[in-house]
Amino acid sequence: MSDTAVLSRKADFPGLVTADGEPWHYLDTAASAQKPQAVVDAMSRALGVDYATVHRGVYGRSAQMTLGYESARRRVAQFIGAKSENEVVFVRGATEAINLVAASWGMVNIGEGDRIVLSTLEHHSNIVPWQMVAERTGAQIDVCPLTEDGQIDLGALEAILTPRTKLVSLAHVSNVLGSVLDARAAADLAHSVGAKLMLDGCQAAPRMTLDMAAIDCDFYAFSGHKIYGPTGIGVLWAREEILDGMPPWQGGGAMIDRVTFEKTTYAPPPQRFEAGTPMITEAIALHAAIEYIDDMGVDQAYDHERQLARTLREALSAHNSIRLFGPEESAGIVSFAMEGVHPHDLGTILDEEHVAIRAGHHCAQPLMDHLGVPATARASFGLYSDESDIAALLRGIERTQRIFG
Amino acid sequence: MSDTAVLSRKADFPGLVTADGEPWHYLDTAASAQKPQAVVDAMSRALGVDYATVHRGVYGRSAQMTLGYESARRRVAQFIGAKSENEVVFVRGATEAINLVAASWGMVNIGEGDRIVLSTLEHHSNIVPWQMVAERTGAQIDVCPLTEDGQIDLGALEAILTPRTKLVSLAHVSNVLGSVLDARAAADLAHSVGAKLMLDGCQAAPRMTLDMAAIDCDFYAFSGHKIYGPTGIGVLWAREEILDGMPPWQGGGAMIDRVTFEKTTYAPPPQRFEAGTPMITEAIALHAAIEYIDDMGVDQAYDHERQLARTLREALSAHNSIRLFGPEESAGIVSFAMEGVHPHDLGTILDEEHVAIRAGHHCAQPLMDHLGVPATARASFGLYSDESDIAALLRGIERTQRIFG
Repeated sequence: MSDTAVLSRKADFPGLVTADGEPWHYLDTAASAQKPQAVVDAMSRALGVDYATVHRGVYGRSAQMTLGYESARRRVAQFIGAKSENEVVFVRGATEAINLVAASWGMVNIGEGDRIVLSTLEHHSNIVPWQMVAERTGAQIDVCPLTEDGQIDLGALEAILTPRTKLVSLAHVSNVLGSVLDARAAADLAHSVGAKLMLDGCQAAPRMTLDMAAIDCDFYAFSGHKIYGPTGIGVLWAREEILDGMPPWQGGGAMIDRVTFEKTTYAPPPQRFEAGTPMITEAIALHAAIEYIDDMGVDQAYDHERQLARTLREALSAHNSIRLFGPEESAGIVSFAMEGVHPHDLGTILDEEHVAIRAGHHCAQPLMDHLGVPATARASFGLYSDESDIAALLRGIERTQRIFG
Repeated sequence: MSDTAVLSRKADFPGLVTADGEPWHYLDTAASAQKPQAVVDAMSRALGVDYATVHRGVYGRSAQMTLGYESARRRVAQFIGAKSENEVVFVRGATEAINLVAASWGMVNIGEGDRIVLSTLEHHSNIVPWQMVAERTGAQIDVCPLTEDGQIDLGALEAILTPRTKLVSLAHVSNVLGSVLDARAAADLAHSVGAKLMLDGCQAAPRMTLDMAAIDCDFYAFSGHKIYGPTGIGVLWAREEILDGMPPWQGGGAMIDRVTFEKTTYAPPPQRFEAGTPMITEAIALHAAIEYIDDMGVDQAYDHERQLARTLREALSAHNSIRLFGPEESAGIVSFAMEGVHPHDLGTILDEEHVAIRAGHHCAQPLMDHLGVPATARASFGLYSDESDIAALLRGIERTQRIFG
């Protein structure tokens, strides 16, 4: 992607300037992406002149909103290569998607003595729900280790799997290291022992072309706000035949077929898993976000962000005081530590330079324990990032070195 | 409220005109309220120039968003008379709030042979989660009947309560009939046998001044989109000491204290119940909605909507072919049926007249069974409603009578 192309992209994002109208070097896209004006506008229309609830109204505008909501579902299905829009459940975010699978599929299909495989680099949202299932069912959690450079070790995964393994749940892209899982190989391994594969796609969905059929996983989760869309919405994809067999999780309106005090029957998926008034305007704004990134081309964004990550890693490796984590090839996410400087202090100094990075455990404390640090500094790129953001970060790092040096 | 005051209010709501710029007579506020421009603007700013994630960033804008998110929580606490903002949990909506209480508090505090009391007029969202708890625990559901005019019969409630009753969960205002519960009397009755009282406040929160201390209930739930705010957010209020004792429901980021694969410890409430990136921009827009209705005065809106309901009931009772449901005094919600006309047909004809009502079971099938109808037509008022909306509805009803007559 040329610099001009990126500059025109930057202008699409109202959040990429400071209150004073200066460029804001936003390097925290892995935490949450900025939103293009098209998403803000879609949300404003949906909350304003177009507003009505879905599914239940007999008047035209409610029918229109229902079309908009269901059209968002079809667009998501197309975006990720789902077989049908009935495989797409709208949830609050990836966290809720994983909790839904854990509470519904997990509590029926995982029992005492069964095993759940996670990896060392998982986000807390892909650990805690499974710990809850394990605690309630008496299942065990096995932890797949990482290769030396911070990738999920598929050789080790193969050795860990047993016929008692019911589920393998892994990050498609690490939110700390940017390492990319060979998802198809993980699916084949899981299936070889009859286990299901769930993927946490929070960092992959905004960066890679997804094709559920090619990946051949069983569950896939991602969040709207990380894919240039609004907060409050996310997606759970699951194979239709798996969703069909899953009991409801939350009860309420819209997910029922017939309610009496004697017996309640439930709607088919995806409605079965969407109790209550859904995230109507959020779905419509998510649709606009997907249009935006598809228009740019996800693959082009991916190449662009990987190139930026290479450039940054190369520049940082010239500093003796900086330790780089993760593999050489990263999906646009670079974690590092500066000798003698706490990541929070670095973040605070960078903030004065209009550079936003994240400092902390990134909701991945077991990975921090593995790396032997309490926290890392993390710069993460989005489709609007460019070399000027890297230059600003490097200037800030040099200033920090002078202050602490 | 004078007609001039209402007219100026109408202008605040971009949704209250048709695509052709004609007045839209929106009488479906009980399903979902239109949003004032102030809410749309707050959402646009939050998604645009102000956007950043909360809690985790070390840069200024993230700290600002965190202040905005937590300030919304404090504003909600103040709005409902909570003792502390720590009693306010942000959820997706009232449905999720009830499911949270059912899955967390319910599964610990309700056991085999215990009893849960609901009423005939409950919304499915206040029935199905308790049926799930009953099914899993072996508890029983008791159904409190209604008085002849459609109010929850507190005399009957007293007779149903036993020392085995652990929870009473009731609608504060019926979404079908507009009947208003004497919430304090219900709380006193529940507490007299040691049970807790949960209130579904979806229809009460936009219409009545709430004071948790005065009502003396234990759990209270309402949805943002019904209180002139955005979709995708709602509120669970619970007494601090009850929340403190509740186990987490969904696991993930932000709700933990420390995660290892051996043992995870949890954050105190309300964070314990807010796993994952929260509904950041929705909370900020909800704050704007509360400012808007508080500025008008909830009590004034309540008087206004009750007066409109009286006027409408009086006008409808002049038609021999119309059957009115519910009590004379309604909180702005009027359900009715026209002899020989299916409510959906009425709704469709009204739509041609730019009048939006709801026709259906209103997610209250047990109440429909009790009333002996498959569906009702329902007109519900909001703070922007006025006599012109009633006049348009009556014109449409007369036209329908001519068509079907």
